[in-house]
Order: sequence, then structure tokens, then C-alpha cells
Amino acid sequence: MEEDKVLCLPRLSQVAVCGGTHGNELSGVYLVRELLKAKKNVTKQEDEEEEAVPLLMVLSHPLQQCFRYIDTDLNRCFTHASLSGPMSGMTPYEIIRARQLNTMLGPKGSHGAVDLVCDLHNTTANMGLCLITYSDCDWICLHIFRHLQANIPLRYIHFDVSNKESYSLDSVGKHGFAMEIGPQPHGVVRSNIYMAMKAGVQHMLDWVQSFNSGSTFEEGFVDVFTMVKHIDYPRDSETRTITAAIHPQLQDQDFCLLRPGGPLFQTFSGETLRYKGDEPLYPFFINECAYYEKGIALSLARKRQVMCKGIVWPLRYIHNA
Amino acid sequence: MEEDKVLCLPRLSQVAVCGGTHGNELSGVYLVRELLKAKKNVTKQEDEEEEAVPLLMVLSHPLQQCFRYIDTDLNRCFTHASLSGPMSGMTPYEIIRARQLNTMLGPKGSHGAVDLVCDLHNTTANMGLCLITYSDCDWICLHIFRHLQANIPLRYIHFDVSNKESYSLDSVGKHGFAMEIGPQPHGVVRSNIYMAMKAGVQHMLDWVQSFNSGSTFEEGFVDVFTMVKHIDYPRDSETRTITAAIHPQLQDQDFCLLRPGGPLFQTFSGETLRYKGDEPLYPFFINECAYYEKGIALSLARKRQVMCKGIVWPLRYIHNA
Repeated sequence: MEEDKVLCLPRLSQVAVCGGTHGNELSGVYLVRELLKAKKNVTKQEDEEEEAVPLLMVLSHPLQQCFRYIDTDLNRCFTHASLSGPMSGMTPYEIIRARQLNTMLGPKGSHGAVDLVCDLHNTTANMGLCLITYSDCDWICLHIFRHLQANIPLRYIHFDVSNKESYSLDSVGKHGFAMEIGPQPHGVVRSNIYMAMKAGVQHMLDWVQSFNSGSTFEEGFVDVFTMVKHIDYPRDSETRTITAAIHPQLQDQDFCLLRPGGPLFQTFSGETLRYKGDEPLYPFFINECAYYEKGIALSLARKRQVMCKGIVWPLRYIHNA
Repeated sequence: MEEDKVLCLPRLSQVAVCGGTHGNELSGVYLVRELLKAKKNVTKQEDEEEEAVPLLMVLSHPLQQCFRYIDTDLNRCFTHASLSGPMSGMTPYEIIRARQLNTMLGPKGSHGAVDLVCDLHNTTANMGLCLITYSDCDWICLHIFRHLQANIPLRYIHFDVSNKESYSLDSVGKHGFAMEIGPQPHGVVRSNIYMAMKAGVQHMLDWVQSFNSGSTFEEGFVDVFTMVKHIDYPRDSETRTITAAIHPQLQDQDFCLLRPGGPLFQTFSGETLRYKGDEPLYPFFINECAYYEKGIALSLARKRQVMCKGIVWPLRYIHNA
């Protein structure tokens, strides 16, 4: 590839890996603990040699294992409004914690923010491993995705939300994504899911090290699933109780094209309810536990091919300067 | 079969089906709601005709969906001690609720208790459908099991605990069992699991109706899994945090014989820990979410064949009297 076709980007001088933003999503909790333990041992052994990738490991929420949150969903507290609004004795715990994390890893949108935030999540949906971002043109995220995808099955999900409106912890970094993996019940750790997440994080760190060493990453296409809409459960008009579950033919079929007329729900009396949209779309987050309260039974995405530009951190220009 | 070989037992004049004893085990919650709705419609249609099986439907816990309990596990509050101890302003909510349920369905151990309690539960373990009881010689429970097993895959689990020490809601009835089904994440309802539970309850009610109509049920053998011991996760000696997950080769292998030396756990650093017992036993409740806090990673059972005696409610003797 010719050099004038690649973008020159600054190196990633600090990377944060966060777990337990949702206290009951346990893969990230135990992985961050394990990485902290390993780092402690390495630091001891190597007598404070320089790390290959300067890495911050963060346990985002003190509630680990039992509960998702205390007052409100921490991973919705990183909007500009939540991070800068007035505080009082009534401020929810998670807003306070979000500001602490923003001080530690941000401030969001500032020059001082860490270069990359990888926030670890689990889902009860059969989504496998996914990176979830707010951008379809963040070349760092897209190249990390391409590198991981060359090694492990993976999907790229894009929520088309502005930086100001972006709400999750990973939005605090200059670049960031949620690493989402399922299926795993919340409050449970499954070895296969833990190991897949561990591999995902290791491949990401390998890529960062390679990028920081001056490697050039060529352009190429990436399949991006852009979220189009959410669908709620059918509910009783008075009590708001759900009256149907995800249809057995749709359950676990994340990223399998849902066509108009396809089965969507099965009511508790046994009736099938069908997808009434007129565009075939890709379902994901099918039957995610935490989304019952958010009114989301599943989300639907459009799949597009995005050209990811070639990038390099021009190490040798600096060395030659 | 000759009549002198069958035991004469009294008819089951009242049956209770309970859901939501654990608020986040949703199959039972939605099934009881659905049965209540259906009963309302039938009652309307049939203008208060007599029911085939007098049926009490109970939503055991007001916390449905989000949480398992408020203060303590309701399904451990039905011991003689909990039901009869002193009360104060500090008494946990679930103890109060247990006493209400004991008044409604019991009192436990009394002549006035309902004849049969079926309490609906879910597990994150891959256990399929199971009946869990405190007896391996409760002929009613064993014959219900045999009838269900003729129609759907099913296992019979026996906790060898005295009536006084028995702790769960189903112990309040003259006969009783938990109907346990998994895998399903807590806080989630999966259509296939809901439908299997619905079928299980329907088959049970069919059997009760048949028994109450004077049918004779012949003797026969039943495979009973009697709980022998629980195994906890490996834990950090100081923090008590778990240091390993269920081994991927054991995960989801409920009721598959675990032999001495078989893989049990995989530590978070990747090491395999093996089963050190010297007796091959059957694992169940492997990686049940709610048992992390109870110190149970899995339970182990011995499989035995139990002779279930033939039974009848001698309807015609009464008719001829």
C-alpha cells in the first residue's frame, strides 16, 4: 500500500480496560481482577520495567456479582448532561460514580482523556462477541475489530448517537467501545465466555502494541450493524406486564435476518405474533435480561459495508526527525 | 394387578400451584398469572361449575421479575423454627410472608394443610425438568413423577431432610415438590422453558384428576437422585472471592456421571482443578446463579432405583358403601 493512502494517527499512550460497569456481568469483573493480579506479579518480576501498552484496569462499580446497580444504570450516566448537571444529597449513586470515572478516565471530550476505553459487558442474548461503538468511522475501533475478527468470530455494532448524547462509559475515552459477549446469565460466570473475553482483550492489546510500534494497517471493508430501532414486548395495557415471550424460533437467532412476517413473540396462551415491519433487518440483544425494564425485547440493525481507511502511527518519521 | 397389592390413599381435595417464590424465576410467575386468567375465563363461561381439580394458584412473592428476594431467601423460611419463632419489628419480610403462606396453604404438618403443593422454579443450570422432594417414599409424588415421565423427559431429586428441617414452600402441603426447570437466566422468560413447565403442570393436574376419579396406579421402579453433598467454588482465602469457574467440560453436563479425577473447575488463570472424591456421582445444579452466595458450585447425587407402590383412591368402595 502506498503511504499517501494511509492516515497518520497519534499513538495510543494509555488504554483502559473496565469491568463490572454492570455489577452482575461477571466475565469483566473476574477478568479485570485477574489482569490486576497478573500486572502485580509482572511488576514485581520485572522490577518496574516499562509496560508494552500502558494499561489502566478499572473495576467500575463496587457492586460486583449480586446486583446490576444501586439507584440507576451506571452505563447510562455518561452523557454531557449527567456529567455536568447540578449535584445534591439526592443525586443517585451512579451519577456520583460516573463523575469519579470521568475524572479518572476523561474528562470526556478533553485532550486529557485516555486514548482508548474498552468496557467489558455480558448479555443473556446469544450474540457471541461484539464490539459496540458510537461511530462507523473511528478507524482505531474499526482496525481493532478487523484484527480481532481475523482471530475470533466477532461483530461490529454501531449506535448512531452524537458524542454529546452518548451515554456509556466507553464514550469517555478518545476512542472506545463496549466488548459485549453472550449468552451468559447475569450473576453467573461461564468459563467459555470468560475465556473468549480474555482472548478478545489480549488480541486488542496485541493490536495496540503493534500500532504503537509503527505497523501500518491497510484499508479494507468491514460489516457494520447499525441499530435502526428497538421492539418492546407486547404488554397488558393496564398493568404494563408483558403478555408474551420471544418466539422460540427467534430466541437465540441474533444476527439472523428477520424478514417481514417472521415469528417475533409467542404469547403466554400460545399465540404467535409476527414481525410487521416491511424491511428485513438483523435482530440482536434478543431477550436481554436487563432490557425488560427498558422496554426492549430486541433491537434491529441494518447491515452495511464500511470502508475502513488504512492507518499508521508514523514512528519512523519521529525517529528520523 | 391384584387389589390387595395397592395402597388406598385419600383423594387430593385441594392442590396449590405456586409461582414466583423466587421473584426473578419468571416461568412460574407468568404461568400462574396465565392460569389465573384462564380460571377467571372458565369460571365466567361455566358459571361456577365445579372444577375438575380444586386448584389454588398462588403468586408467592410480591417481588416479581427484578429481584430474588428483599431480606432473605423466602424458600428457606418454611422450617418449623422460622414458622413458629418470635416476631419483632426486625423480622425479615420473607419470614412474615412465609407465615402468611403457611396460614393460606398449611399450617405445615396439620390436617388442614392442602393436599399437594407444586412450587414452580427456574435454574440457570442445564437440568431440564425435575421434581425435587424431601421423600423417596411419597407415593403421590412418585406416581406424579411416573405419569409426567411417560410424557416428557424428567428427573426426580430427593433431599434427605426431615419434615421438621424441611425449609421450602412445598413442604407446607401434605405432599409437595418443587418443579424445577432450566436452563434459563433469572429475570428472563424463554418460551421453550415456559411451555415445558406449562406442559408439566398440565400433566400433573391430569394425573390428580385421574387419581381422584378412582384410577389405580400400578407399582413400578423409579430412578431417584438423592443429594449426597455440595461442592463450593475455590475461593481466595482472604476475600472469599471465587478464583475459578465451572470447568467448560462440566458446564451444562448436569446428570452426567462425574468420575474421580474428572474436570471440575477452571481457574481464572486457566488451570484445571479435578474432582477429588472417590465415588462417581451425578452432578446437578451446576453453576446455579443463586447458589454462589450459598457456597454451592454444584451438588452431587447418588442414583438409586426405588420401588414405588401401587396406589388407588378407592372411589367405588365409597360409592358402594
